[in-house]
Amino acid sequence: MIHRLRGAWNAGRLSKARTEAFSDGVFSIAATLLVLDIRFPKLPESAGTAGLAAGLLSVLPNALAYVLSFAVVCIYWVNHHQLLMLVERVTRGLLWLNGLFLMLLAFIAFPTALIGEHPFQPLAASVYGIVMALIGLAYHLLHSYILRTPGVIPEAAAERLRSGARLPEFSGALLYGGSAAIAWASPVAAIVLYFAIAIAFIFPHALGFAKAEGAE
Amino acid sequence: MIHRLRGAWNAGRLSKARTEAFSDGVFSIAATLLVLDIRFPKLPESAGTAGLAAGLLSVLPNALAYVLSFAVVCIYWVNHHQLLMLVERVTRGLLWLNGLFLMLLAFIAFPTALIGEHPFQPLAASVYGIVMALIGLAYHLLHSYILRTPGVIPEAAAERLRSGARLPEFSGALLYGGSAAIAWASPVAAIVLYFAIAIAFIFPHALGFAKAEGAE
Amino acid sequence: MIHRLRGAWNAGRLSKARTEAFSDGVFSIAATLLVLDIRFPKLPESAGTAGLAAGLLSVLPNALAYVLSFAVVCIYWVNHHQLLMLVERVTRGLLWLNGLFLMLLAFIAFPTALIGEHPFQPLAASVYGIVMALIGLAYHLLHSYILRTPGVIPEAAAERLRSGARLPEFSGALLYGGSAAIAWASPVAAIVLYFAIAIAFIFPHALGFAKAEGAE
Amino acid sequence: MIHRLRGAWNAGRLSKARTEAFSDGVFSIAATLLVLDIRFPKLPESAGTAGLAAGLLSVLPNALAYVLSFAVVCIYWVNHHQLLMLVERVTRGLLWLNGLFLMLLAFIAFPTALIGEHPFQPLAASVYGIVMALIGLAYHLLHSYILRTPGVIPEAAAERLRSGARLPEFSGALLYGGSAAIAWASPVAAIVLYFAIAIAFIFPHALGFAKAEGAE
Repeated sequence: MIHRLRGAWNAGRLSKARTEAFSDGVFSIAATLLVLDIRFPKLPESAGTAGLAAGLLSVLPNALAYVLSFAVVCIYWVNHHQLLMLVERVTRGLLWLNGLFLMLLAFIAFPTALIGEHPFQPLAASVYGIVMALIGLAYHLLHSYILRTPGVIPEAAAERLRSGARLPEFSGALLYGGSAAIAWASPVAAIVLYFAIAIAFIFPHALGFAKAEGAE
Repeated sequence: MIHRLRGAWNAGRLSKARTEAFSDGVFSIAATLLVLDIRFPKLPESAGTAGLAAGLLSVLPNALAYVLSFAVVCIYWVNHHQLLMLVERVTRGLLWLNGLFLMLLAFIAFPTALIGEHPFQPLAASVYGIVMALIGLAYHLLHSYILRTPGVIPEAAAERLRSGARLPEFSGALLYGGSAAIAWASPVAAIVLYFAIAIAFIFPHALGFAKAEGAE
Repeated sequence: MIHRLRGAWNAGRLSKARTEAFSDGVFSIAATLLVLDIRFPKLPESAGTAGLAAGLLSVLPNALAYVLSFAVVCIYWVNHHQLLMLVERVTRGLLWLNGLFLMLLAFIAFPTALIGEHPFQPLAASVYGIVMALIGLAYHLLHSYILRTPGVIPEAAAERLRSGARLPEFSGALLYGGSAAIAWASPVAAIVLYFAIAIAFIFPHALGFAKAEGAE
Repeated sequence: MIHRLRGAWNAGRLSKARTEAFSDGVFSIAATLLVLDIRFPKLPESAGTAGLAAGLLSVLPNALAYVLSFAVVCIYWVNHHQLLMLVERVTRGLLWLNGLFLMLLAFIAFPTALIGEHPFQPLAASVYGIVMALIGLAYHLLHSYILRTPGVIPEAAAERLRSGARLPEFSGALLYGGSAAIAWASPVAAIVLYFAIAIAFIFPHALGFAKAEGAE
């Protein structure tokens, strides 16, 4: 029974082009929608330059949260794109793990608005880190499935991926989880860590997370 | 006259690539927009961790509704994708039945917000089921049109599709309609059923809705 | 000078694939965003089934406006798609007339919300018709440019397009303009006409707007 | 060390198709979302034609801001599209500079809403110009990187791009920066200049910004 199910799960020869199109759609919308949470406060008609300047200052945390989360979406897009480039066969399992990952990624607007509105609240900063850790775990599941399921990517490519990373592949989830705990001591420290993690993933070679040579 | 109209309806050799692109666009936006309905309540600046935690709890039904409807959109995307992969010729009729289906699917944000806001209301849970049944019916119309119109898919593929399903193809619509009726006895039971239906469609082989072997 | 400008305007051999991708993106987002204007009224926690039912009735005009405008976007998508399929060369002029058309089309959410909120207001129904007429005019400009600029589509295809329509191509704009005037006598009559125009464009062969035979 | 990093940054042979798909997604959503900021004021049920007309007048600045920013997005889309058409190899550096550019471009909804709400406020008009200048700078960085990194575009194409422009490539950023300063003397003059800059970029050949001949 379990064997038959696993067969159905790993069967199928579906369209990689449409999987990428749907994923690219979700990535680009998830990133672009973030701007809707930078809502300028409703000012009276008579608000002068000082009032407007105060309004702009009040949305600065939202703008910083936008930059952070837009970068996170781009990071996942780059990684997802490099991973799927190697895929030779799209199975039902891949589609559904991809769907789970995209469901969590598209949720990013919610914790982004939360830290934008309540930047100094431990709970808000902690929820952001927990959602990031969940996204990281879902990506890890997708990544592992692709690496371990026979016939999904060529064995040589799987080998290259395994040897290309210096840190275990789920370290992102661990880093975010740790920062979410730190948020209870200092929300600002946690948010600074979230920025640092993003920068580390943009420049993985600089920080020794990945080997610098090769076609990555 | 009717004959001439049917001729025009089934004529045309339109672009499958753009039909898929437009559909993928609607699918990915319909799924991603759902996050906009998880609106954190506006809290006073002085709201402490307890206030924030209460706020998070209050949006939990919205978050669950998001998970449910995102899964529904993914399920239709997977099925739509497998169906269109077989299509050889895009007729006007296919375009318009596809348009009707997408119009109802894109509407999903409305009943999702409704059950998120009013999870214990029979009418809300019932409206969700009715909209799901309508989406199911529209998909059924598209599916039947594709299977029955000569020249749209190869006969062998149509045969395989017909024999691959163990349940009649419109059973989704029936299941949702039945759950919508149950909502009047217990809204929570109906919502649990909606989750169960989604899980059944994600693992159709496990539940005997589809045969496990074959390229599906 | 004018000659040199016309040369620059009609020059270029740009990518048709990305023009279609950008257009399909705008089409699918313009259609899907319409659902955001069906906003259920904020009800008190204690609102019973009767309160919810009244709330649902109050958004019925918005839902009907959604159906109408989603259909309009689909109609333009089908026509745009058939027109661009014939294009062999994407010039700067085509890109900018396409951009003008998409700018007006993406604006559709505004008059849709207007008639959804104020269905019995002459000005609202009239604004809807005027925006539709403007979209129709912009599409007419794009269509004429493509038909008349040498080298954009093959001469045979241009000839087929010219002879395929029984009504002048800008009749859509005229019909919407006329209905916008009728709105001042009866807003409901104008909205009924908008639905009738949409149906006429979905079944052009049935109504003698286009010849039934041929590859359309 | 720096050398190794630069190697990693300029390495990679990633998919141009998905880079274009993600970019086209952000471009089309950034443009289409702008319509959400044209929010008709909530009128009482009893508001007559005069009330509705006053409401429409009050959103006229928002509608003009929509036209301006939609045109800006289209201009960048046309340029981005022409630039990426020439790219032969997508490096990590290109992806991240593209991501930075898209992050700033997708932000356009915020200053657009600002000038739509406060058209006569120096600070609002100035912020619009500053954001436009930042988008221009980010595009300039992407453009320079593509022109200067060996192997990204063929040398002949890079040469043609360099000689095709009559003005330095970052003049857009300078023009916007200058207009942002003028906003402090007259916000309306600055907004008129923003429209003029957009028109100049739509018709670059007419204004001597680019040579009229050639495949551009």
